[in-house]
This record gives sequence, structure tokens and C-alpha cells, in this order.
Amino acid sequence: MNYTFSDKMEALQPSAIREILKATADPNIISFAAGNPAPEAFPCEAVEKITAEIMGQNPIGALQYSISEGYPPLRDMMKEMCRSRYGVMGEDDDLIIVSGAQQGIDLVCKCLCNEGDTIIVENPSFVGALNTLRSYNANLVGVAMDQDGINIEKLEEALKANSNTKLMYLIPNFQNPSGITMSYEKRKAVYALAKKYGVIILEDNPYGELRFRGEDVPAIKTLDEDGLVVYCGSFSKVLSPGLRVGYLVANKNLMGKIVVAKQCTDVHTTILSQMICERFLAEYDFDQHIANLREIYRKKCGLMISEMDKHFSPNVTHTNPEGGLFLWCTLPQGSDMLGFCQKAVENGVAMVPGNAFMAQATDPTTSFRMNFSTPTDEKIIEGCEILGRLTKEMF
Amino acid sequence: MNYTFSDKMEALQPSAIREILKATADPNIISFAAGNPAPEAFPCEAVEKITAEIMGQNPIGALQYSISEGYPPLRDMMKEMCRSRYGVMGEDDDLIIVSGAQQGIDLVCKCLCNEGDTIIVENPSFVGALNTLRSYNANLVGVAMDQDGINIEKLEEALKANSNTKLMYLIPNFQNPSGITMSYEKRKAVYALAKKYGVIILEDNPYGELRFRGEDVPAIKTLDEDGLVVYCGSFSKVLSPGLRVGYLVANKNLMGKIVVAKQCTDVHTTILSQMICERFLAEYDFDQHIANLREIYRKKCGLMISEMDKHFSPNVTHTNPEGGLFLWCTLPQGSDMLGFCQKAVENGVAMVPGNAFMAQATDPTTSFRMNFSTPTDEKIIEGCEILGRLTKEMF
Repeated sequence: MNYTFSDKMEALQPSAIREILKATADPNIISFAAGNPAPEAFPCEAVEKITAEIMGQNPIGALQYSISEGYPPLRDMMKEMCRSRYGVMGEDDDLIIVSGAQQGIDLVCKCLCNEGDTIIVENPSFVGALNTLRSYNANLVGVAMDQDGINIEKLEEALKANSNTKLMYLIPNFQNPSGITMSYEKRKAVYALAKKYGVIILEDNPYGELRFRGEDVPAIKTLDEDGLVVYCGSFSKVLSPGLRVGYLVANKNLMGKIVVAKQCTDVHTTILSQMICERFLAEYDFDQHIANLREIYRKKCGLMISEMDKHFSPNVTHTNPEGGLFLWCTLPQGSDMLGFCQKAVENGVAMVPGNAFMAQATDPTTSFRMNFSTPTDEKIIEGCEILGRLTKEMF
Repeated sequence: MNYTFSDKMEALQPSAIREILKATADPNIISFAAGNPAPEAFPCEAVEKITAEIMGQNPIGALQYSISEGYPPLRDMMKEMCRSRYGVMGEDDDLIIVSGAQQGIDLVCKCLCNEGDTIIVENPSFVGALNTLRSYNANLVGVAMDQDGINIEKLEEALKANSNTKLMYLIPNFQNPSGITMSYEKRKAVYALAKKYGVIILEDNPYGELRFRGEDVPAIKTLDEDGLVVYCGSFSKVLSPGLRVGYLVANKNLMGKIVVAKQCTDVHTTILSQMICERFLAEYDFDQHIANLREIYRKKCGLMISEMDKHFSPNVTHTNPEGGLFLWCTLPQGSDMLGFCQKAVENGVAMVPGNAFMAQATDPTTSFRMNFSTPTDEKIIEGCEILGRLTKEMF
């Protein structure tokens, strides 16, 4: 049987990262390719205790069908948190619980985009999101970033050149893969352009809580007076990705349609997962937990950078993120980046080649992504030494 | 802000049932409108014990990211079960874990259907599936059913009339909403037509284990020598819908694309949910558990039918299902079914009007769906008496 796939899915290939991760199941490979929270970042005892309480006190509530909008106590809690902690919950906004931020991106794109519509993304951007947008046959237009976020002139050029732009997908904090944070000035400029051109912003903020230096920058959504910004948050990096719990904040009129899309997709998010998130926020000291996470990632990022600076050829540059999980390394112009990544794997170290994150896989890049959250300190030291040796040989 | 929604989502309204369920949150309303497992059908103690074991022994495994295809021990177990218990796992097939059967339907449609492609469905059919298919802007063509399943002549007419048919969506066992089971002869005929016209069958079997009388009929997938059938199963009716775990079995070449779609949708299904399903199958007597469920639903269905036969006007007919959760009641031709359902709610009893299940909401029907799994025995007796009085007054 030769299957005829839909146009939107025909060309779509498996996520390069998820395929690389399968290859790095080999325990001898040092993987800087993942994006997983550090094992020590999971509050295992707390979750064990909470889960036992839920299953002892309300097992049928955890096992029965529930409503598509989300488990009401978690929704209420997240509305309050989005209002008071993040400032992203306006009077005309509503909040829905989704099965991870990935589903949030999926639902927003489904509700707003026809095949062929343009979606503007930072270049590079999160490959998981790019693939979701591609799965709607969107026309992805990548806009280059400066050190303080997306280039505003090029963004306006892209908006002018693509009058069918429906959405801008942006990760303003510690962007995946670049580690770049968008300045407040640029957030205001981006919002102004969205308003000028009538385009919705999907603001993805999975890493916002993981700031380990510098000052918080208000979300683009805090500027939203026109219902133009959909804000997407997640429990994946602050509690657990395996539970698959995220949330969307959007204007009520848009949210009504997102709820319909959610019903069509998976009816509702796993209730037990939602209950665990709710109890964790209610019963534990979230600020202290986040402080622990920041300390873990501050140390790991610092270690990776110091090891890179110690061993790498001075011709290889890297970003210096204020939070999150990723560094973005750039080889000298004209370098064979794919060849370098291949050589690295042969020497026992895996990274993700930068082209995986480009709006078009053919967009030129000499960069690759390094993850510091998953490997142990020993592996960071060992892997950076190997990579350093290779950079000195090759560049 | 006036939002411009995508063409596929523009016209889609919230599921009528989920909206009715919100209305029936009023505890004074007797609801025959749900599709929830009976509260006594949940093996709460077993799940509580299993969950404690998982969180005690492998908390990071439960909380960390995992692979899109599903938790490997559960996948292996379901492959074996699909091979030996259901006969639906061929040599060229693969199996993926999905976030409930609803997601299974979503992913199959996404991979195979362009906007405007025809999907043939039983008329009536499961409204959740219909809405998912609508959310891809599919052209839904409903084919009427006989007492032994879809009308084969009308099915071939529909296939001839719609050369762009990509998919047939069928629920052969104790169909939702009709309660009808497709005969083995018809399953063979349906398969032959799928082969003749080169159309994929999506066989949805959420209720198959809930047979409380009669003999099992082999799945259409057991006939599949050509990679034409995608089989969709679920833990929602045999263990828990809140956990959101289902599975798809399909030819490997098709499954490769489904996995890509799954990555784009929610990365993977909640790991803790998958672990609970796996441990339940491994550590508990599944056959005994299923025997308990069948006994619960045999009694509830029997009670509802005997109460209806006692109280209802003889001009109102109903199906006599061999399993599942639903009965399909039909008022005399020309009756105002919506008016009757409205009157029923005013008298404190909610059902789902039959038009909610029609391929086109305007397809004529004088039927409505009755659920016997969720209400208590007392509510079944009380509600049938009220409805019976109304049927005698009106018909």
C-alpha cells in the first residue's frame, strides 16, 4: 500500500532532535543535544506525597472525564498567578489548560491559520514549534535576531512582504535555541508592529521562571490592550515535562475557538497531571523551588561556559544566556558546521546542528545548540574538552 | 478585536454534548446525556497502589520527557495484547500510544486528509469524532445503518459518488450513539469496498471489551491484508478516561507519519498515565476486571430497557445493544424530537438530541441518545418514569 498523505504532512519529517536523541541512547555518547530538565530539578518526594493524597482522597475525580477548559482549581490558580505574578491576564482574557505548550502552539495555529498563510518566526527558533507550524502547511518566514532579540527592521520588512501573515511566534526569554532575551524596548516595538499590521503574537514563555541572572523583563502580553497576544506557559521546565501540562492565556473571543479545537484534539488534559500541578502550587513553596532550579541551572550554565572558554578555539563564539537551558555556539563564517557536528558525534559528543532550528532548513548557519541542563557536571567537563580539542584542530 | 479564524475552524461550534453536560451540572437534573464510565467501574484501590509504587520506585521516569511513540513497556504490552487478544496486530503493523482515542482520530485525519476530502461516517456517529473530522474541513458523508451495521449498498453509492473519499470512520462494536454492532458479514463487505475504492478505514473500538451479551465479532482490522485499516483502542472505558490513554495500530509506513504528527501535537502522552495503564495490566487480573465491568453495564442496560418498556409509549422504539454505554431511542416519524428533549429537560431529565450525531446537523432524525452507564439505578428508574409519562402524553 502506497499511502497518499495530506499536503500538510507529506513533506514533514521527524524532529531532527528527537531522532538525534534516539541515536544518543548509547550511554557512551555525551549528549548536549537534549532539552530535558536536570534530574535533580524534580521535586520527587513532594510529587510522590501529593499523588498519594490525590489518589487517596479523590480517586474518581482523578480518573473520570472532566471539562476541556481544564481542572477548575488549577485554572483558577493559574489565572491568579498570571494576573499577579506575570501580569499577563487582562480583564478580557481567559485561560485554558493544555497538554504541554506544544499543544498550545498547535491549537493557536489550527484556529488562526489556513494552509499557505505566513507565520513569522525568529530565526533560529524552537524546532518543535516550527514543525507544528509546518504541519499546517504554513509559510514560515524567519527573521534574524540581534543580541537583544528579533531585528525590528527586518521584522517590518517581513510583515510588509507577506501581507498574509497571521501569526508571529516568539520566545522572548532565553530563547530556544539561541539563549537570547528580547529587550523591553524590542517587546514594545514588536507589539506596535503587530498592532500596525493586524497580526497575532504567540508569545511562548516556557523558560521565563528559569532566570539565573539579570532582571525580569515584562512579557509582551503585559502590553496587550488589543487582544493581539496569546501567552503560552508550561509546567514542563518548572515541575515536570512528563506530566504534559501547559496553559494559554488569550482574549475570551479567541479562547472560545481554542476550546473547541481542544475538544477535537484530546478532549481534555490528563486530570491527574493537572491535580498534581495544582497541589504542588498550593502546598509547596514555589518561590523556594524556583530558587533551587535557578541555582542548578546557573551553576551548570556557568560551568559549561567556563569549560568552553577554557578549551574552545577563540574563533568559536557563544551566547551568554541569562536563564533557560541552552547556549548557541557559532563557528567561523564559512565553516562546515554539519561536518563539525558529525565529527563531534564520532568523538562521543552530540549537539544539535543549527540548521534544525532554521525556518528553512536551507537557511545558512554555522551555529549549533548546546544544552547544559541535562548532562552531569562531569559530562559537561569531559564533553567540552573533547569539543574544544576538535575546534582547535578545525578552526 | 475581530478575529479571523481559519476556514476549517470558522464554523465549528462547541460539542453539543459537552455544552449539555455543563447545563446538567445542576444536581437536580437526571442526566442520561453523559458517556462517562460508572463511578463503581474504577479500580480505585488498585490504581492508588500502583501509582504509589511508580512514584516511589521511578519518579524521574514518570516526570521526565519520553519518546513520542509511547512508554516502551506499555507499547510492548499493547502490541502483544493486540496480537493475541484482539488479532489486530499484523506483521507489517506498528502501535503508538496516543492521548485518548480522540487524539488517535485527530492524528489519522491530519495525516491523510486535505480540506474538502470526503470522509464517510455512519449516520449517526460519535459527535466527538465528527467534530474532529470537521476541524479538518472534511466533507462528511453519512451513510445510514441497519440493525446489523452500515448499509452496504448505500456505502458503495457514497463511495461512487465521492471519488475524493480518503477515509471511512466506523465504530463496529456497540456504536456510539446507536448501540448497534456490525455483523461479521458486513465487516467483510466493508473491507472489500475499502479495497475496491482504495479508501482507508479508521476502526474505532473504545467499547469492544464491554460486551455483556452475545459473541465477540472479529475486528475489521483482523481482515486487513493490505494495510487499509487503522485500529483505534482506548483505556478510557476499561480503566479511566481521565488518564487520557489510547492507542493506534496501523501499517508501519502509515505509522511513521502518524508519529511525526504526534510529535507536533503534544510531544508524547503523559508518562505517569501510561505507567499506570502498564502496571494495571501487568499486576492485576484484567479478565476479572472486565468481567466486573460487563456485569455493571449488563445490569444498568437491562434496568434502563425494562424501565423504558414499562413506562414508554409503545410508539417509541429503542435499540437493544449487546454492550457499550448507549441506547438509541426513536420517536414516531414526524415527531418534534428537539421539542421532546427540551420538554424532558424542563421536567428534569437530559438526553442528547439525535441531530448532534448526524453527519450534517440538518439530516432528519427523531432519535435521541440515552446513556445508562453514568446514572445510578435510582436515577434510571426515576428518569425513565418521567420520560415515559412525557412519551405517553406526546406520542
